[in-house]
Amino acid sequence: LKVFSLNSNPDLAAEIAANIGVKLGKCSVNQFSDGEVQISIEESVRGCDVFVVQSTSEPVNQHIMELLIMIDALKRASAKTINVVIPYYGYARQDRKARSREPITAKLIADLIQKAGATRVISIDLHAPQAQGFFNIPVDQLIGIPILSDYFEKKQLEDVVVVAPDHGSVKRARQLAERLKAPIAIIDKRGPREYIAGETNIVGNIENKTVILIDDIIDTGNRVSTGTNVLRQNGAKEVYACCTHPVLSGMAIEKIKDSDVKELVVTNSIYLPEEKRLDKITQLTIAP
Amino acid sequence: LKVFSLNSNPDLAAEIAANIGVKLGKCSVNQFSDGEVQISIEESVRGCDVFVVQSTSEPVNQHIMELLIMIDALKRASAKTINVVIPYYGYARQDRKARSREPITAKLIADLIQKAGATRVISIDLHAPQAQGFFNIPVDQLIGIPILSDYFEKKQLEDVVVVAPDHGSVKRARQLAERLKAPIAIIDKRGPREYIAGETNIVGNIENKTVILIDDIIDTGNRVSTGTNVLRQNGAKEVYACCTHPVLSGMAIEKIKDSDVKELVVTNSIYLPEEKRLDKITQLTIAP
Ligand SMILES: Nc1ncnc2c1ncn2[C@@H]1O[C@H](COP(=O)(O)O)[C@@H](O)[C@H]1O
Ligand SMILES: Nc1ncnc2c1ncn2[C@@H]1O[C@H](COP(=O)(O)O)[C@@H](O)[C@H]1O
Repeated sequence: LKVFSLNSNPDLAAEIAANIGVKLGKCSVNQFSDGEVQISIEESVRGCDVFVVQSTSEPVNQHIMELLIMIDALKRASAKTINVVIPYYGYARQDRKARSREPITAKLIADLIQKAGATRVISIDLHAPQAQGFFNIPVDQLIGIPILSDYFEKKQLEDVVVVAPDHGSVKRARQLAERLKAPIAIIDKRGPREYIAGETNIVGNIENKTVILIDDIIDTGNRVSTGTNVLRQNGAKEVYACCTHPVLSGMAIEKIKDSDVKELVVTNSIYLPEEKRLDKITQLTIAP
Repeated sequence: LKVFSLNSNPDLAAEIAANIGVKLGKCSVNQFSDGEVQISIEESVRGCDVFVVQSTSEPVNQHIMELLIMIDALKRASAKTINVVIPYYGYARQDRKARSREPITAKLIADLIQKAGATRVISIDLHAPQAQGFFNIPVDQLIGIPILSDYFEKKQLEDVVVVAPDHGSVKRARQLAERLKAPIAIIDKRGPREYIAGETNIVGNIENKTVILIDDIIDTGNRVSTGTNVLRQNGAKEVYACCTHPVLSGMAIEKIKDSDVKELVVTNSIYLPEEKRLDKITQLTIAP
């Protein structure tokens, strides 16, 4: 068994390797002068069960190409099995044709990973569980909720309500609430993406409660910051937020800093560079 | 018949469409906040023969993903045929295992393009003609030499010698020389990449001649600038250089500016941004 890391999340890969008690495999993953990915595996993998750890996070196209080229190199080096660990699966939200003449990129990526030669995929909290069906190879889907709920349990918060930021997220909120033995509430928004003042109701009682807002991905930070406002306006005492995948693109960090959210709890499925590490962001490890 | 452009080379795509007498198809190719490619085709392509123009030049991984996602969208929108025009085929130099445990990325890209759903590929001056065999769909390979030779013919240079920068380029030099009715010479370098002073001979007579150095790709500009030096030291009167694909990465522009090369003639297989347009670089169109 060998574990290799690509460039998206070397800390997590090192932790995973340490947890299993192996050293990270030696390989160089660089770029030529013109930006083309250059990979060379620097130890034999013939006949080995190989695990490659790579989140397809920003820069997503770069990280996807690194992964595909690594799979190609492993296949040509006669690895026995090629198990790709993709803690954060990029393009997961493009998983259906919302309008006509749109691609289904999540399925395309699944095809590319298989075509390159992967024999198994391991991911955590895929945006839609249906994405498992995009693959014809085994997919292990791990869930992040136990890690988040353990953390909140230890905090011994009182009067907790778990809040789903929209109707699509109720199942996830339900799972966290069950573990925390708390009730749930739902932000009942109309319109597609943004919460509009006056047009947003809360289903469930949050008055004077400690609220935990849960999502799978926090990307632009709009939903967390406007959601926190809505919850506070509706009487929530404190607002915590949590998610598995901290994409945090664009102005997300500024929005979270400026928002009323007390703490944002995320996992390390995506590496956070220094400038994204706020005091109020707690990152939990998924390595074990 | 419809022609669509992606983001690598819209000028060339517009020229190609104008040459055939059609308007460019409407589509939006943008990025989400987190850098994921977002494509939407804005007119029906059902039953159409569709041509997509995209060089997989820098940023190569971005341009490859745009192409693959576009092919997916066209396939799902029931295009009859999907013909991808890839004037410059990125990763073409990674076309064999030079060392063990290396990928063959040129073949991987071919597999990905086919898996996404392309039905035909059109390219110009593939780095190795063998790359045609990487595809199981028809590949039309156009050649850039007639465009370059027409240009040099019109200049009516005297005492011309066409020079191959290494032994692998002799065939290309031969083809240009035949069209220009000129003799050839070869830079006979030892070692893998760089010319080393004192260790480089010229096979053939270049003394007091007007030399045209020809390559398929000019990337870092090292070969052109050091090659020009070697040729001048060996008595060449003037040195012109030409290639099909002006990759011009890293410090290439500075090196060419500082070198003794009189003029560099390239095609528009790769778009040159303003900062890469020197007075001594001439760009010829391949659109017709
Ligand atoms: N990277 C992305 N950033 C923002 N929105 C996206 C992204 N990828 C896909 N989408 C859109 O998000 C929607 C799906 O999100 P959801 O409704 O949460 O499953 C679709 O309408 C997609 O067009
Ligand atoms: N983007 C690139 N930039 C520089 N060298 C490359 C690139 N891609 C592949 N190569 C190397 O170039 C060599 C092939 O070039 P050639 O001998 O001209 O066919 C191989 O050894 C590759 O490792």
